[in-house]
Amino acid sequence: MVPDRDEVSSQARPHHMTDSLFLGIDGGGTKCRARLRDSDGNLLGEGIGGPSNIRLDPDVVWASILSASRAALAEANLQEFDFSRIHAGMGAAGAGQTSAVERLLSRSHPFGSFSIDTDAHTAWLGAFGGGDGAILIVGTGSCGYGVVAGERRYVGGWGYEISDEGSGAAIGREVLRHTIWAYDGRIPSTPLSDAILGEFGHSPEAIVDWVGKARPADYARYAPLVLEHAQRRDPLGLVLIEEAARQMAQIATRLLDLGAPALCLFGGLSEPLRHWLAPPLQQVIVQPKADAMDGAILLARQTTHTSSPRRPR
Amino acid sequence: MVPDRDEVSSQARPHHMTDSLFLGIDGGGTKCRARLRDSDGNLLGEGIGGPSNIRLDPDVVWASILSASRAALAEANLQEFDFSRIHAGMGAAGAGQTSAVERLLSRSHPFGSFSIDTDAHTAWLGAFGGGDGAILIVGTGSCGYGVVAGERRYVGGWGYEISDEGSGAAIGREVLRHTIWAYDGRIPSTPLSDAILGEFGHSPEAIVDWVGKARPADYARYAPLVLEHAQRRDPLGLVLIEEAARQMAQIATRLLDLGAPALCLFGGLSEPLRHWLAPPLQQVIVQPKADAMDGAILLARQTTHTSSPRRPR
Repeated sequence: MVPDRDEVSSQARPHHMTDSLFLGIDGGGTKCRARLRDSDGNLLGEGIGGPSNIRLDPDVVWASILSASRAALAEANLQEFDFSRIHAGMGAAGAGQTSAVERLLSRSHPFGSFSIDTDAHTAWLGAFGGGDGAILIVGTGSCGYGVVAGERRYVGGWGYEISDEGSGAAIGREVLRHTIWAYDGRIPSTPLSDAILGEFGHSPEAIVDWVGKARPADYARYAPLVLEHAQRRDPLGLVLIEEAARQMAQIATRLLDLGAPALCLFGGLSEPLRHWLAPPLQQVIVQPKADAMDGAILLARQTTHTSSPRRPR
Repeated sequence: MVPDRDEVSSQARPHHMTDSLFLGIDGGGTKCRARLRDSDGNLLGEGIGGPSNIRLDPDVVWASILSASRAALAEANLQEFDFSRIHAGMGAAGAGQTSAVERLLSRSHPFGSFSIDTDAHTAWLGAFGGGDGAILIVGTGSCGYGVVAGERRYVGGWGYEISDEGSGAAIGREVLRHTIWAYDGRIPSTPLSDAILGEFGHSPEAIVDWVGKARPADYARYAPLVLEHAQRRDPLGLVLIEEAARQMAQIATRLLDLGAPALCLFGGLSEPLRHWLAPPLQQVIVQPKADAMDGAILLARQTTHTSSPRRPR
């Protein structure tokens, strides 16, 4: 799909030079990925950049976007001046926060057009090609999102402190809480609580010191250990994973009740946790048609037809 | 009890000047209170100072301790040189953290002796006069503590993130979480969830922005509203307060199972929540013999007999 430099004839160039190109960007907290396609949907190139959760400094985010984009352009043997015929679409973590979107769009950029939406929206666009359906992301955080008859609905996903049920961060936080209960003698200790306590030298004070600096991703690193113990029928592991699955089911059920005909799962914990869901939920889970980068390309294509309300000023 | 300046005769002075005095300090996150008694237990004076959670800057904490102490000395018509015959005891929030205690005791101070322990320990000392018993503090945070046959036991109280069950901060956080569930449609809305949502202009985004800056005391400010709605049988209010009481009961039950014969309650939420406890728990609740400042005086008296392991270096 990626044309070799020699394939691009000088005669063909004038025509190609005016053709629109579509760039789909998937922006996350640790990295930013970009995919370039021509108007026929042919793959031209891909690239990776740095962190691009748009709650970060907009200069950092734009640097990540542009380095991912330049890498995709380089793979397609395109130049800096080709930016102007690129319609870019981006699905970004943090784009649910209006102030963060406005801050990002207050900077200038080289694209012909640039549209941005939440990472949930581009994941849904890719998964259902714009048709009715819902997605459920369960990783460090969690978020449910669905579109039914053009209406968007978010369920959960409002962050670690008061939302993100069933997420890795929630599982990690709850295993620490229950480990302290076991230490206190409020509940019986289990191999899982012993393992956690052992990691902190059997000192709740060490746990509290750790918690003082812990970010959601730090808590989430305990989720695989909890899953592993639940698989071995550890009583505490079972309580925590069954609770996470119950919370995940509550989000999924609400999305289905809103009219979503099917559900796609994303995020590192969705695969292990789906097996803990009840049959009526398992039966509506489908494979996504395409990924979030192709969802972002669809966003960019939609923008060329309808003028984006979020064009940079 | 407080002697008038004229009552202190010049003849009596030499004798009084060598007598030991006992100062009890109750150090909290918002203020520091001190009470001075003579060796016969007569009240000489009291004073109030600034914040003295010992996780704060030690210079701030010492300034608070000394201003509360000087106010107590002034009320007793005593002078700066009387500090040297004062045995001070302090119960302090944060004193469970060894590093914070060491940081505080690395500074010099004017007292004849200075002992420090957790606020839970001095509350227990005051409540049971040093005898077997347990206390349960339920305010912004929560903590259970008991001493049985000389053995100390903490149950809970490891902070907002992974402990402090049943506390005002936990109630406040959970009412925000459930309000988002009601907003999502995961649970039915109630007058309580409507009231909370109304406070944030019906915007979950506004809740998330608020949460980003919220401290435990900020969450705890919603606890009275939750209690009020629970009293009116609001379904969400009932769920949250019954859960807080259940968590409080779990801590209390563990303390009783460890052998504590009775329980004293402290903290602003313990009085409203106690009525939600089951009869077997209500029946073991007793009134404290004395308050935490007198508990701290008892700590200071014990120190004059046994050399404190935590004397300043």
